[in-house]
Amino acid sequence: MARIVMKFGGTSMAGSERIRGVAARVKREIDAGNEVAVVVSAMAGETDRLVGFCREASPLADPREYDVVVAAGEQVTSGLLAIALQAAGVPARSWLGWQLPVHSSSAHSVARIEGIETDGVLAAMARGEVAVVPGFQGLSAENRITTLGRGGSDTSAVALAAALKADRCDIYTDVDGVYTTDPRIVPRARKLDRITYEEMLELASVGAKVLQTRSVELAMKEKVRVQVLSSFSDAPGTLVVDEDEEMERELIAGVAYDKNEAKVTLVGVPDRPGVVAAIFGPLADANVNVDMIVQNIAKGEGTTDVTFTVPRTQLPLSLDVLGKAHGDIGHAQVLSDANVAKISVVGVGMRSHAGVAATMFRALADRGINIQAITTSEIKVSVLIAEEYVELAVRVLHTAYGLDSEVAA
Amino acid sequence: MARIVMKFGGTSMAGSERIRGVAARVKREIDAGNEVAVVVSAMAGETDRLVGFCREASPLADPREYDVVVAAGEQVTSGLLAIALQAAGVPARSWLGWQLPVHSSSAHSVARIEGIETDGVLAAMARGEVAVVPGFQGLSAENRITTLGRGGSDTSAVALAAALKADRCDIYTDVDGVYTTDPRIVPRARKLDRITYEEMLELASVGAKVLQTRSVELAMKEKVRVQVLSSFSDAPGTLVVDEDEEMERELIAGVAYDKNEAKVTLVGVPDRPGVVAAIFGPLADANVNVDMIVQNIAKGEGTTDVTFTVPRTQLPLSLDVLGKAHGDIGHAQVLSDANVAKISVVGVGMRSHAGVAATMFRALADRGINIQAITTSEIKVSVLIAEEYVELAVRVLHTAYGLDSEVAA
Repeated sequence: MARIVMKFGGTSMAGSERIRGVAARVKREIDAGNEVAVVVSAMAGETDRLVGFCREASPLADPREYDVVVAAGEQVTSGLLAIALQAAGVPARSWLGWQLPVHSSSAHSVARIEGIETDGVLAAMARGEVAVVPGFQGLSAENRITTLGRGGSDTSAVALAAALKADRCDIYTDVDGVYTTDPRIVPRARKLDRITYEEMLELASVGAKVLQTRSVELAMKEKVRVQVLSSFSDAPGTLVVDEDEEMERELIAGVAYDKNEAKVTLVGVPDRPGVVAAIFGPLADANVNVDMIVQNIAKGEGTTDVTFTVPRTQLPLSLDVLGKAHGDIGHAQVLSDANVAKISVVGVGMRSHAGVAATMFRALADRGINIQAITTSEIKVSVLIAEEYVELAVRVLHTAYGLDSEVAA
Repeated sequence: MARIVMKFGGTSMAGSERIRGVAARVKREIDAGNEVAVVVSAMAGETDRLVGFCREASPLADPREYDVVVAAGEQVTSGLLAIALQAAGVPARSWLGWQLPVHSSSAHSVARIEGIETDGVLAAMARGEVAVVPGFQGLSAENRITTLGRGGSDTSAVALAAALKADRCDIYTDVDGVYTTDPRIVPRARKLDRITYEEMLELASVGAKVLQTRSVELAMKEKVRVQVLSSFSDAPGTLVVDEDEEMERELIAGVAYDKNEAKVTLVGVPDRPGVVAAIFGPLADANVNVDMIVQNIAKGEGTTDVTFTVPRTQLPLSLDVLGKAHGDIGHAQVLSDANVAKISVVGVGMRSHAGVAATMFRALADRGINIQAITTSEIKVSVLIAEEYVELAVRVLHTAYGLDSEVAA
């Protein structure tokens, strides 16, 4: 017998037919003798509809009331799944965020879970009843409904799994696991059986949006074994685990890409203390999310060049901010380029293996792909290249690191 | 300064534009220096949508989970109205059923309000904040969401007005008050300035569906002054008041009709003790709502005829039940007629005036309209006639009791 938290996303809950399908999957775990709690998202499209109502009511909606409105989507699906489970012969009840309760901070619309009371749910699960918990919801110290931010249901599921000391947290989604890269670009991409939390975080932040980043951080911190798998097939998924569990470690877990970046270069920046702060302080104040930052050593004439990337949608704002800060920075010129993309190779194996970066640079050079900037972390190497080479670069690297499967997907 | 509860129905809350209109109306009461609590329904059509989901999940949905699902509609509109009020410069917050809380019985989907805690709301209202309360919702002793049954928001509003000791409970709807009869049939129908609770109850139960019956009963019991008025015009509405307040009393408040009845006559029923129980017991067990019942004295041969009406949709069921009970009843024959209608004249004035019924019978006889059955109460006379005469009968009676206005509506 195991204690399992199952989480179903919006596409899995979209309509009565699919909710019955979810109930059937939950029933299988119960029939296998497991204790089960289920975390559900709102029906696909419902949260957008509710957010739209709030915006129409006021562009500056009070986040406390926004939370009252948008939390309704998960309330509906939790009740419906409890009904569908009962219809399938499985005892079940819904436990709303304020009923458990899921204690959260008071940062409405972006609240953080602070603790989950589980006595009632554990007692219900012990007598064979499925606990259906709406994701995304919390309760503030002021007794008001909070929500955790878009995609927060993954975090709800992991937090509940941690609080229940569950053996596993199964996240059912519309993909059947985590792949070595985007199968639309590389048909020979392989589904990973296992991936570490750290790799998952790096892959998520560079565009493999299978799990919400916060949920992976929480799973890593609380050591929750997370499994990503499909609601629509019975294929085994990908297990996200601690590095210690990852026995047969691959050098590289995957190749990710991100086309949503733009490059900015400040030419002729005076090489003096505080000049970097003069650049990035105003950008931070304007809520620009700067990603890669590259600064070379000063040239002979006492100036340097600084290159960084920003989200493509924030490029006009960034140029505007830099224009206003020109007096403080004292740069000679601003260059910008929106036609860039970031390619990253990610893997905990590179900690103990030299030559990962060199393999990357050589493989790209062999195809004549120019590298515009490089950043590295302990388990990731990222390069910036011209956008038109993205697909080629991903395929070349996927092959170079030996990730191709025997057969095309 | 007055303390007012305003209630807005589903058509008043259908979409952002209308919700802004509601906010503007509420603002007017605040600007006039009043303390205001608002009770809202779900957007028109939303409760049907949610009920539909429940039915699809299971025809026999657990009423506790049904309540979780359908209560979401009012939760959404309460948050949206709070946002819209703030956007209009009026401090406001939503108070959900479980937050006040609105204590109710545990009869899920048809719960009764047992008490409303008002400390928080009263304090908020005293500092100029509008309290927005979703109608229809309660909280059971088991800490679970309950709902009050369809149309329950009127009852929520009256109960809140009673708990707050409000000066007035204004029910905004899509009609602008209570009329002497259906203006579609009688263009000279007049809007009543005032009507007593008792008259309102009799009119509601015979088809003038402006207020939910339970809400009028509660208003009468708690002596809440209810005003019915339109969300879409500034015309004065109809005040529903205690009989003592009703100074210039009309003889007749209105003429109502109901085309949803069917007539059943049992011919040759043995005239012995218990035979009436043998007829209506099985019908009650089958949940048939019997309305008018007429039994004449026994004829010479020791038998009698019993006539009664049932909802037209329940006629086949009723005939089935009577067929099975034939052995116990021992009647000679069953006659039924679905082409009947009930016409009622209602007014507290008839308590002290003779001749109201006689006027009715003569007016109908003058037009050759045959009366098939008669029932009377203290403030109502109802007759059953052939359905094709309904419009003629309503017009004739409206004129006979002097209810016609000077000008056509």
